Amino acid sequence: MEPIHITDVSPRDGLQNQQIHLDTAAKLQLIRLLAAAGVRSVEATSFVSPKTVPQMADAAELVPQLRTALPALRTSVLVPNLKGLERAHAAGAQEIAVVLSATETMNRKNINMGLDQAIDVSVQTLAAAHALGLRTRAYVAVAFDCPFEGETPLDRVVALARCMHEAGAGEIVIADTIGSGSPGQVKERIGALADALPVAQLAVHLHDTRGMGVANAWAALEAGVRRFDASVGGIGGCPFAPGAAGNLATEDLVLMAERSGFATGISQDGLLGAIDFAEARLQRPLGGRAIQWLRRQRDKAREAHVDAPQQAAA
Amino acid sequence: MEPIHITDVSPRDGLQNQQIHLDTAAKLQLIRLLAAAGVRSVEATSFVSPKTVPQMADAAELVPQLRTALPALRTSVLVPNLKGLERAHAAGAQEIAVVLSATETMNRKNINMGLDQAIDVSVQTLAAAHALGLRTRAYVAVAFDCPFEGETPLDRVVALARCMHEAGAGEIVIADTIGSGSPGQVKERIGALADALPVAQLAVHLHDTRGMGVANAWAALEAGVRRFDASVGGIGGCPFAPGAAGNLATEDLVLMAERSGFATGISQDGLLGAIDFAEARLQRPLGGRAIQWLRRQRDKAREAHVDAPQQAAA
Repeated sequence: MEPIHITDVSPRDGLQNQQIHLDTAAKLQLIRLLAAAGVRSVEATSFVSPKTVPQMADAAELVPQLRTALPALRTSVLVPNLKGLERAHAAGAQEIAVVLSATETMNRKNINMGLDQAIDVSVQTLAAAHALGLRTRAYVAVAFDCPFEGETPLDRVVALARCMHEAGAGEIVIADTIGSGSPGQVKERIGALADALPVAQLAVHLHDTRGMGVANAWAALEAGVRRFDASVGGIGGCPFAPGAAGNLATEDLVLMAERSGFATGISQDGLLGAIDFAEARLQRPLGGRAIQWLRRQRDKAREAHVDAPQQAAA
Repeated sequence: MEPIHITDVSPRDGLQNQQIHLDTAAKLQLIRLLAAAGVRSVEATSFVSPKTVPQMADAAELVPQLRTALPALRTSVLVPNLKGLERAHAAGAQEIAVVLSATETMNRKNINMGLDQAIDVSVQTLAAAHALGLRTRAYVAVAFDCPFEGETPLDRVVALARCMHEAGAGEIVIADTIGSGSPGQVKERIGALADALPVAQLAVHLHDTRGMGVANAWAALEAGVRRFDASVGGIGGCPFAPGAAGNLATEDLVLMAERSGFATGISQDGLLGAIDFAEARLQRPLGGRAIQWLRRQRDKAREAHVDAPQQAAA
């Protein structure tokens, strides 16, 4: 089975929009559970303004604790600019991600800059990160539709992705930020991007607003993409993008990929444990499109496990 | 935009498993709403034993009422054997469907026959239907996995589909009866079937048990299939197949297909009206994976419609 690489973004993209605040110990525990489930890569936090995203205010505490607790886990952190990069580096981060939205309005609403300035900031931040020896990811956000401008021109998405590639980003993450994309659009857009860039460096970041997240992931697999963002339990949404629902659920992606002949190295039982934990802490139901079926399978397996020794004893 | 053809099977596959009984007038109203939404083909009922499937006991009343009320609607009815065909023909049915399960055990549990006998019954029923001048569909059920036997051998599925084609079935409907298939499996199985049979005569019938229904529909589109069964609101499940959840929701399929460049001729607003009606009558929440987003869009459009004249008047 061909491997695919999944970055679980629930600690960052998932938690940033939750009403209930998780403390550092709870975040650490969520990430421990993900790592125990076989997740090898997480986006752990972001070094943004604590006023804007209070859930991420403990970034400088979380990163060193993670490095000690889970040294083998690949951990990236989001940084909005050079100042964020400095804070991330000081905390010991080894991989950073920059976010470049593909439209003028989205940049203005999100970071109060125009597109050209946002490109400059991303390029500078990537260069500084590379000078510090850090690994890098670059998001191209609203790569399908912008909540303010409508459909994002494909040639601009390709140009921005190429720009991030030329700036040395190790991974270019094409993000359907509001979850408006369809598999037909993924085929077209990722196809064009794969023609312009090395497909091994492309990742997709999907939201499941319209119930097409899994279909879009399959379309990306068919276009050659092997790197995916997903969020356990589908935790997510973006505070700056009206209409964005939860991220594509890690467990849905794992189920689809494994059943379609790809290896993820991730255990569904482990993911269900992480979902149970997050549900209890966030005090709301979580889970993607397959959650009921997955839990039923777990219940059946537990019943069989309980039955078996009894039968052996009888 | 290339057209695709959708048969809404909610009146048959959807309703047969519901606890609340719909009377003939309610079924007629559901089908009227579907036709008003632009659905051009429904599976209306089945001529099976009323003892086994009480919801379908009014088949002989529903069919002539439908022909009078909606003469342009393409309406098929399920028949299990020659006796069912006789009853369907007497009621004025113009298109019938036979169901051939692809495993020994599923046939025994479903119709109390072995596979060889089930093949004979299907071939005879198709021949008799053709002699009466009726159009025909033939389901190949449990074409991915059987709840009793596990994975169904692909070569057997191809052989049975070919057998139904040779028996003259106008449409061969490949059914993932328990909703266990993945897009990788759809690609493999429908690819093999499309090599063995004219793809224009192939349809797929998907269930959404594991959240992969839309992805599977996309994989079928990519394999060349243009004919789909779906059920408005995802109403469904099979009383004889443990673990089967609702059918792929018509509104999810329409959303994905239209956003991917295919024309369905079906209005989402119309489908939402049918879902509202079915929810009220069946007294339970319905809707596929995109239902919340679709309803939010409808609400927004209504608000905009209310706002507009007020602004004009101000």
